[in-house]
Amino acid sequence: MIEKQLVGEKAAEHIKDGMVVGLGTGSTFFYTLQKLGQLVKEGLSFRGIPTSVRTQVLAKEMGIPLVDFSEIDRIDLAIDGADEVNPDLDLIKGGGGALLREKIIAKAAKTFVVIADPNKAVEKLGGFRLPVEVVPFGYQLTKQLISKTGIGPELRMANKEPYVTDNGNYLFDCSIGSTHNIKELEQKLNMIPGVVENGLFIGMADILITTDHEQNVVIKNRKES
Amino acid sequence: MIEKQLVGEKAAEHIKDGMVVGLGTGSTFFYTLQKLGQLVKEGLSFRGIPTSVRTQVLAKEMGIPLVDFSEIDRIDLAIDGADEVNPDLDLIKGGGGALLREKIIAKAAKTFVVIADPNKAVEKLGGFRLPVEVVPFGYQLTKQLISKTGIGPELRMANKEPYVTDNGNYLFDCSIGSTHNIKELEQKLNMIPGVVENGLFIGMADILITTDHEQNVVIKNRKES
Repeated sequence: MIEKQLVGEKAAEHIKDGMVVGLGTGSTFFYTLQKLGQLVKEGLSFRGIPTSVRTQVLAKEMGIPLVDFSEIDRIDLAIDGADEVNPDLDLIKGGGGALLREKIIAKAAKTFVVIADPNKAVEKLGGFRLPVEVVPFGYQLTKQLISKTGIGPELRMANKEPYVTDNGNYLFDCSIGSTHNIKELEQKLNMIPGVVENGLFIGMADILITTDHEQNVVIKNRKES
Repeated sequence: MIEKQLVGEKAAEHIKDGMVVGLGTGSTFFYTLQKLGQLVKEGLSFRGIPTSVRTQVLAKEMGIPLVDFSEIDRIDLAIDGADEVNPDLDLIKGGGGALLREKIIAKAAKTFVVIADPNKAVEKLGGFRLPVEVVPFGYQLTKQLISKTGIGPELRMANKEPYVTDNGNYLFDCSIGSTHNIKELEQKLNMIPGVVENGLFIGMADILITTDHEQNVVIKNRKES
């Protein structure tokens, strides 16, 4: 899809020499990575922190210099895709399973840039299922507690076994519908002992790069509330 | 210490035939386990869910039947120690490093019984350092975010390496002092992406078993607020 490429490559322009950059995960960010590989060859000098093992492998292949957390004390910029974006630039993320690392990096970054083709835009979050990462220990009990928040959790499977995240945890995909107060939902989820993190990114994105229906790149800034 | 034995053994009386029981971790609960091993030999029939690998091993040695989460849909009772208890029966737990599993079990249990010698009683929580469990990925960034809540996080070490919990995570021991609103602090900590759980158990304990200064067992029930 040309839109993914357009927004993915556009995001690379935000990276300047000397930056520490959080590298996202997914099919749109793939185009950012490709572009960054090219820019590095042309002399751009930055250091990347990958949000997934997958991105780590791809970045290495593309010659992008990576850095370890022990070597940095800040992240200047993070770029990542999203599964849904609402008009306030709140997101659902985690379809690809990397939500926890993505959220740690996005939270730490001074500027968080989201790249999303126009199919990801929604008036209200909830069409896409919300991933909730939980510790494997007692996940059956944790499922009961998640259910009490009114969202139907379903264990994500892979090859007839529970899908395991890069952090060794399980994922529940949940139907949040369109009626919830997402801020309240996020707090309730985070207060459940077995829940590690959830795919709601509220008030975190600073900039959205997307396209209009004529495939022109459009940049939106989050309005401070 | 005789008080640990008194309260630990007293707790065993709460267990009835047919119950599913969450088994805690630590030096006080050790006496409960010993007593339960004896009661099982005398014919008491219940099934236990251990909160740590350590307790699992001990329970097996003592002949206590254990059950897997996949075989149960409820926990009737959980019994566990605490590092600090305030007059509202709010707790700090996790000195032993098992806070996450302990919290999952305590939360799921219909009744949560805390056993604590009188040295654990405090007017205000915070003399004992609060353990905060975090994912290893980006723990340096998570430390920065924890620091912003005003509690000084220090990485727990073991043999010159970060201490690793049963869930493969790290622990920060934090000085919360006596000035914090602990409910607010717990929420703030849980909203940090890299934080898995913290050692504050607020409004969870139903019954406290302790002793007075003449070594009489004293039982306190939590007042519903």
